[in-house]
Amino acid sequence: MMPWSQHNLLDLQDLSAVEIEMVMETAKSFKEVSAREVKKVPALRGKTIVMLFFEPSTRTRTSFELAAKRLSADTVNIAASSSSLSKGETILDTARNIEAMNVDMIVVRHASAGVPHFLARHLKASIINAGDGCRSHPTQALLDMFTINERLGRIKGINVGIVGDILHSRVARSNIWGLTRCGANVTLCGPSTLLPVEVEKMGVRITHDLDSVIKQSDVLMLLRLQKERQQEKFLPSVREYARVFGVDREKLKVAKKDLIIMHPGPTNRGIELSADVADGEHSVILEQVTNGVAIRMAVLYLLAGTKQRLADSG
Amino acid sequence: MMPWSQHNLLDLQDLSAVEIEMVMETAKSFKEVSAREVKKVPALRGKTIVMLFFEPSTRTRTSFELAAKRLSADTVNIAASSSSLSKGETILDTARNIEAMNVDMIVVRHASAGVPHFLARHLKASIINAGDGCRSHPTQALLDMFTINERLGRIKGINVGIVGDILHSRVARSNIWGLTRCGANVTLCGPSTLLPVEVEKMGVRITHDLDSVIKQSDVLMLLRLQKERQQEKFLPSVREYARVFGVDREKLKVAKKDLIIMHPGPTNRGIELSADVADGEHSVILEQVTNGVAIRMAVLYLLAGTKQRLADSG
Amino acid sequence: MMPWSQHNLLDLQDLSAVEIEMVMETAKSFKEVSAREVKKVPALRGKTIVMLFFEPSTRTRTSFELAAKRLSADTVNIAASSSSLSKGETILDTARNIEAMNVDMIVVRHASAGVPHFLARHLKASIINAGDGCRSHPTQALLDMFTINERLGRIKGINVGIVGDILHSRVARSNIWGLTRCGANVTLCGPSTLLPVEVEKMGVRITHDLDSVIKQSDVLMLLRLQKERQQEKFLPSVREYARVFGVDREKLKVAKKDLIIMHPGPTNRGIELSADVADGEHSVILEQVTNGVAIRMAVLYLLAGTKQRLADSG
Repeated sequence: MMPWSQHNLLDLQDLSAVEIEMVMETAKSFKEVSAREVKKVPALRGKTIVMLFFEPSTRTRTSFELAAKRLSADTVNIAASSSSLSKGETILDTARNIEAMNVDMIVVRHASAGVPHFLARHLKASIINAGDGCRSHPTQALLDMFTINERLGRIKGINVGIVGDILHSRVARSNIWGLTRCGANVTLCGPSTLLPVEVEKMGVRITHDLDSVIKQSDVLMLLRLQKERQQEKFLPSVREYARVFGVDREKLKVAKKDLIIMHPGPTNRGIELSADVADGEHSVILEQVTNGVAIRMAVLYLLAGTKQRLADSG
Repeated sequence: MMPWSQHNLLDLQDLSAVEIEMVMETAKSFKEVSAREVKKVPALRGKTIVMLFFEPSTRTRTSFELAAKRLSADTVNIAASSSSLSKGETILDTARNIEAMNVDMIVVRHASAGVPHFLARHLKASIINAGDGCRSHPTQALLDMFTINERLGRIKGINVGIVGDILHSRVARSNIWGLTRCGANVTLCGPSTLLPVEVEKMGVRITHDLDSVIKQSDVLMLLRLQKERQQEKFLPSVREYARVFGVDREKLKVAKKDLIIMHPGPTNRGIELSADVADGEHSVILEQVTNGVAIRMAVLYLLAGTKQRLADSG
Repeated sequence: MMPWSQHNLLDLQDLSAVEIEMVMETAKSFKEVSAREVKKVPALRGKTIVMLFFEPSTRTRTSFELAAKRLSADTVNIAASSSSLSKGETILDTARNIEAMNVDMIVVRHASAGVPHFLARHLKASIINAGDGCRSHPTQALLDMFTINERLGRIKGINVGIVGDILHSRVARSNIWGLTRCGANVTLCGPSTLLPVEVEKMGVRITHDLDSVIKQSDVLMLLRLQKERQQEKFLPSVREYARVFGVDREKLKVAKKDLIIMHPGPTNRGIELSADVADGEHSVILEQVTNGVAIRMAVLYLLAGTKQRLADSG
């Protein structure tokens, strides 16, 4: 295997198809670690990993924290309120201070797109983007691709339908990049107000017809609807959204037998999907969560390795 | 010793007298661990334990967290606000997501009775009830019984007076179950509005006469008074409560010489008990706190063992 | 080396010049640990250290937490709101409860001067003052002195200018004590309203002329300006403060070539110092942060050692 050369994980588009493959291969062995009685390997013993979350996120933070702990790293949580740190300059000061404590990696989430990239330009610590505004959520896309590959045996050539609020979704953006790079056929589906026109340039098909998407898809990826979008006038009503774009057993009658249904969570049962679909035979939502820890272990492990190799050769 | 077979700890009434004895025996050796210079054993290395607290609780959370860490488990804290998770379905989704990260045990506290039981019905991870509404607080009762047994050499036949707001107290309910099951004689004492009539069915005596309770008791267990009960009209005034049901040196003149006074904390000095009684020779309040870590180590250890045995045989 | 005999670290004035030297020597070897690939030593394995913060402080808490983890101690964070614990008696109850869980050390920060001293009088656990009101911040002064010594090779005889709000600064108070005890010449500079007259008794010089301070200093220590001081009428305006007492490139023209500029953080860029000075060749602000972890490792290590030695001989 070629050596890993990335120092940060900012956007999925920075990774080649071979590197994506490498993360998934590494995650496969770490998934096995989390299934053991003793879920712990000494790989990152003595490394320091800081979770710097400017937006609250129990799930993603917990997933990264467990990944780090199962690799035996030391972790510190910093919940920074975006309000007290509204200026870019001050965010940088905060991050530089954290780095100065000999921190190896900073996992950062922020409501503004580009903050992880800004930090990466100024810091030597590895920066991992855990979600920045509507831009990127690379580990989510990696875990989604891992789940697809694990279930269907490949990514190349499969049909993926992504349904919902594409406009505001960092999950959708990162998945579009990763899936098309690995040769999947991606179709986006949602209300016109939530389907940005520029995405057609990303090599995807766009439609408003959910039925046709369900019929052709091997994978249906449903996005979380932020209910506040209604107040922002992107939606006539949440009920109307659920009627047209929500997935229930009835609509799934035309689906392929082995269709898998994914959701980045947390789900709004009764909106994006009915409760019986969320818990039904097509759903792999909890597998995604399980795989998330494995993917994050792989990312932390690979990024830590680079630094070590750079230090060895420098 | 017979093998431990419980997978969860939800209510003390699920444990037989033999099982209660087993927890206390195990706690005895773990208490010794916490008294060492190196307070750490590798028993739960590589296990993942999540503290899922829907109600804030520094003491109980810290006690469980230290117990887990001294057993070398990995821990993650999740402080969930009850408000954002008002529907049972969503609590279940949250817990299922946590479990999907290969979590072995979830320590849960919630303002509503029955939430830990609900989670236990749907999850494979061990659920430990760290307090649910007015219903149960089993580890508190176990640490109280451990303290009584350590001080008095036995539980069978001793006289325990529980004083205060029985109505709203999960501590009282769990203690009544455990103490009567192990053969103690329990007397409840408090204002009529805070003494639920149905408790008489639990095999206890009820009285409003604190003096007689003090006179006969080997153990006096004082409950924390929630001052907001006055606004809810359960109490004429906090001062009046303190005068009638608060314990001070004067009232203790009729007590047995080796009476022990317990309180689950945090105490309201000057209400349930005077400061000199809290710090006086009868008080074992801080021993209860010390024993709490030992009991929680024992519970985590025993529950982890079950899962392992089930996995071995399955 | 003589044995360390301090059980607590409350004020820097409790340490002799020899003891200060000892902390700095110990920190030197721990700084080397944090620069390794594996930043971890087993020195405090099985010790329990609680961070009890009544005032929020991401930086200091993180620094102590990393220090403890790199020494392999178990750590628990307790963020106590000062509001719910307004009475000294209750703070003591909280701390006694924490100690009863066999906690070895409590790192405490509180908005009121003297709280760590109060706790130290009543508890057996080692108390480390992480900042109490306007009184003391001993580990900050120790890391500042460590940084000066590392950069300039000595403390004795060097000229240190401390600029800004001396009145409200625990950082200034602890540094004045430590620096004068080790033989530095300290000059304080700031607006009259923020320069308490009694400090002259501490063996320092006072001036309002920043230019002369810059000219003569080997070290310039800038204090954070709390903007709310303007509302409290200590300041005519923040802009006026910045003009007279802020440090920029222009004012530094008269400085010694190897002047070092320090700041305890977080900095107000454009107030205490201009952005180019903060990031310029004189600034050692990030080195202070790096050294902070080393100093705190040294303090935790030395205090833990005492207890062990006392236990061995007792």
